[in-house]
Amino acid sequence: MKKSVFYHAGCPVCVSAEHDIINLIGQDHIEVVHLGEERDRIDAAEKAGVKSVPALITPNGNVLHINFGASLEDVKK
Amino acid sequence: MKKSVFYHAGCPVCVSAEHDIINLIGQDHIEVVHLGEERDRIDAAEKAGVKSVPALITPNGNVLHINFGASLEDVKK
Repeated sequence: MKKSVFYHAGCPVCVSAEHDIINLIGQDHIEVVHLGEERDRIDAAEKAGVKSVPALITPNGNVLHINFGASLEDVKK
Repeated sequence: MKKSVFYHAGCPVCVSAEHDIINLIGQDHIEVVHLGEERDRIDAAEKAGVKSVPALITPNGNVLHINFGASLEDVKK
């Protein structure tokens, strides 16, 4: 199965959501990307439709914005 | 495993998120509740912390607001 991608930026809301999503979907099915540390991936996240973090991109490319930690614009700063 | 509860109100954002979440977590692990039709469950959703739909309550009681379809206040109307 193609993996989902979980984008976050290390914020408390992100960490909490990350734990929940990993518990629900399983670690093996998710690639976790910290956009604060992997800044060269911000562009791909934006193109995938991510407006804020935490966000999950499903294997079929849909974006699920989960709660609200920070806008992508703030992550870019 | 205790089931997650997916609250929605039949909106397009809700239906799309429902499909995604069922694909990710599996139908057997989720109870789907349509608050527009099961209005006697709005109160429990609110007490669980749901502010908008679609929302997923994890087995440990955390609330994941997924994208934004409608506020719970609007669902009550």
